[in-house]
Amino acid sequence: MNASIDQLYVQLTGFLDQEQVTQNETVRDLHSKDESYHTPSLPDLVVYPRSTDEVSRIVKAAGSLNVPVIPFGVGSSLEGHVIPYDHGITIDFTEMNQIIEVNPSDMLVTVQPGVTRSVLNKELKKHGLFFSVDPGADATLGGMAATNASGTTSVKYGVMRDQVRDLEVVLADGTVIHTGNKAAKSSSGYHLNGLFVGSEGTLGCFTELTLRVFGIPEVTTAARATFTSITNAIEAVPAILQAGIPIARVELVDTESIRQVNAYSETDYAELPTLFLEFHGNEAGLAQDVAFTEEIVTDFGCKEILFETETASRNRLWEARHNAAYAYTHGFPGKQMMLTDVCVPISKLAEAVVFAREELDRTGLEGGIVGHVGDGNFHVLLMIDHENEEELKTADEYNETIVRRALACGGTCTGEHGVGVGKQKYQRDEHGEAYDVMLKIKHVLDPDNVLNPGKLIK
Amino acid sequence: MNASIDQLYVQLTGFLDQEQVTQNETVRDLHSKDESYHTPSLPDLVVYPRSTDEVSRIVKAAGSLNVPVIPFGVGSSLEGHVIPYDHGITIDFTEMNQIIEVNPSDMLVTVQPGVTRSVLNKELKKHGLFFSVDPGADATLGGMAATNASGTTSVKYGVMRDQVRDLEVVLADGTVIHTGNKAAKSSSGYHLNGLFVGSEGTLGCFTELTLRVFGIPEVTTAARATFTSITNAIEAVPAILQAGIPIARVELVDTESIRQVNAYSETDYAELPTLFLEFHGNEAGLAQDVAFTEEIVTDFGCKEILFETETASRNRLWEARHNAAYAYTHGFPGKQMMLTDVCVPISKLAEAVVFAREELDRTGLEGGIVGHVGDGNFHVLLMIDHENEEELKTADEYNETIVRRALACGGTCTGEHGVGVGKQKYQRDEHGEAYDVMLKIKHVLDPDNVLNPGKLIK
Repeated sequence: MNASIDQLYVQLTGFLDQEQVTQNETVRDLHSKDESYHTPSLPDLVVYPRSTDEVSRIVKAAGSLNVPVIPFGVGSSLEGHVIPYDHGITIDFTEMNQIIEVNPSDMLVTVQPGVTRSVLNKELKKHGLFFSVDPGADATLGGMAATNASGTTSVKYGVMRDQVRDLEVVLADGTVIHTGNKAAKSSSGYHLNGLFVGSEGTLGCFTELTLRVFGIPEVTTAARATFTSITNAIEAVPAILQAGIPIARVELVDTESIRQVNAYSETDYAELPTLFLEFHGNEAGLAQDVAFTEEIVTDFGCKEILFETETASRNRLWEARHNAAYAYTHGFPGKQMMLTDVCVPISKLAEAVVFAREELDRTGLEGGIVGHVGDGNFHVLLMIDHENEEELKTADEYNETIVRRALACGGTCTGEHGVGVGKQKYQRDEHGEAYDVMLKIKHVLDPDNVLNPGKLIK
Repeated sequence: MNASIDQLYVQLTGFLDQEQVTQNETVRDLHSKDESYHTPSLPDLVVYPRSTDEVSRIVKAAGSLNVPVIPFGVGSSLEGHVIPYDHGITIDFTEMNQIIEVNPSDMLVTVQPGVTRSVLNKELKKHGLFFSVDPGADATLGGMAATNASGTTSVKYGVMRDQVRDLEVVLADGTVIHTGNKAAKSSSGYHLNGLFVGSEGTLGCFTELTLRVFGIPEVTTAARATFTSITNAIEAVPAILQAGIPIARVELVDTESIRQVNAYSETDYAELPTLFLEFHGNEAGLAQDVAFTEEIVTDFGCKEILFETETASRNRLWEARHNAAYAYTHGFPGKQMMLTDVCVPISKLAEAVVFAREELDRTGLEGGIVGHVGDGNFHVLLMIDHENEEELKTADEYNETIVRRALACGGTCTGEHGVGVGKQKYQRDEHGEAYDVMLKIKHVLDPDNVLNPGKLIK
């Protein structure tokens, strides 16, 4: 440990309990990585604050010694967001995990950043409410706001940014601000909610979040629709959206991924390109939506559509979908996953996915494709041997090919995983001179580059 | 005209046609005001660019001479946003009024900033699509994005910020950036879309907008529900929302405003607190929504609910609602309107509106209340004699009383009209130290304070 860290340790233990600050090797190791393939790197200290005031004092102390600060939820990020490449301190928000208020009248909830979405949903259920963003992982809400997470339900309910009504944020100098308020809309001042959501810990640490929640729909129906061609499956989706059907989930799972799912989840789904669908609504409206969707998918060559109305079988279906990533990990022992994450205009999606599959076959890499196709967002799940430099290089190049094509058709290098360290090399190309605006904002709000340095922007 | 303006005139006419730059007194007068009660002030020049490149050169030329630049749509702003208090040049976007692309597959449209929403909707109708934001006035889309406009349909479809997928923006130094892309979602870089929408011309001039559009719903039904008490009318609204009814419009019109509407629009609506409602959906689902809403409003003491399913009668109903402001102007000849615009958490709305009415009665000012109550946003329409300093002072103080109460309960000083010059005095109180973050962003992006100086922030 260098002198600054020693000094910081003394300062921190001056106002925190001994057990809130640790240099323990195992704990540091747990905070050296996320769920991605990016190389781990150890923090010097891990700190567990219990209040906004403590976070403010921690950030201020670290800032005055020029020690990097990395906020950490459960470490489920996918582009190395929480890896302390410049070392410094990791602030673990595990102990700031209170649901502060559930407000059914305003359909709002206020939480500390360490609350996970499953804990929140369990509490909300008592009030007939639910929190809509579902990225698969049981991430913390602070982390989900930091990366602008989304997932399977965004096509109807929007992404994380759409749910954030207010953030309490500790800035680089320890100042505590609120980015919004509790009203449903506002045209007052610059929109700081939008700026801070997705800022990946580079502009501040979130210490409290006020989020929009929704009423649990009267009826929920899920379905699996199989197609003989992946192009047909994808092209059915804009037709469903244009018909004004308020589809709640529409997920593509390609043949290879269905195969992995069957092996892992002991399902016997037809091994064909499949759309997993979910409808939310009132009974009469949903019945009409379902019937109309059946007509549309039939027009697009759907081979079979099977409905799941029972909660248990519906849950099994979505569990199988969410377990697709684990299924691959299980199916390719010794290999690790690399995920692509582009999002393209939906009119370009079919050709982008077909291209991704063709390129994948060309490289000889193992993997499959799943996608939040209602948003034009898809992932190639690549199974690679990280010890094999050649394979890693091929996978990196493949990822780049997919990104370049997405950018060329008006899309983005990351639909939902964020930039972290993995997508930095595309930022200038994607944003052009707007990247300079981002750099200016970072520099003016964090002049000493203390907050999660080297992530998102540099 | 001072020397800088002379010099700028020479520079501008070097690359613009003579008729694109004017010092004409009448034209300048038309650009000296908006639809608000704020005191007019003349620009030195009015410029009519025809391309992004021209806007870039205009802004760059003005910036190099430290001459203020004020972007102007149709001048329907309500807080003095377009009034050139520091003089300088007004950029009128009238000639940049092309619909560049309608893209039904991606449910997107790309327009120049001078396109008005009625022109856009006329074109979209051919494709079975519509643009959802309806602030009443036939504003330009550039202006609507600049103020984060909303209105009657936001409860279902969201505000202007929710529709903006990409902006082309000319920055203070003439650089042209894009703030987003054409994908439905992105976690790449800082969210500049959100930051620039609602920036009121203080961070850049918008030269192109890519906006989300929606399919025209299968069925639309409107209704008028009358209540014996304004509190009951308002309290029915969160009950409707919590029931998960995807109501498309829910507007409060108080007794006084119904009286004005009847006099102006020759309607014979019952002179009682009224909710104007609209439902969008499929036939079966909407019927169920309507029946459920009837039950709910009945529970809240609704006296009568009348439905309008025919397009003509539905349009008449919304025309009457939208004409409420004109009705007042007509009903109080010689007086001018001042509008309050707070937005509060919906659970606080009933008491906020009752308070506003009581305070209004106490002051003796003439006026009434209308509101986008699904969002917790309401306006007091005050009719005042601007020559009467005492009355103007009373109205200002009244406006302040309403704002202070909104801020005290977690609301905002402006739900949709924006800050302009009228709501500046509340910015520090509303945003606290977050206001310093806004100031830093303004200063780093417009260091010489050339872009719409004195608006939103200063």
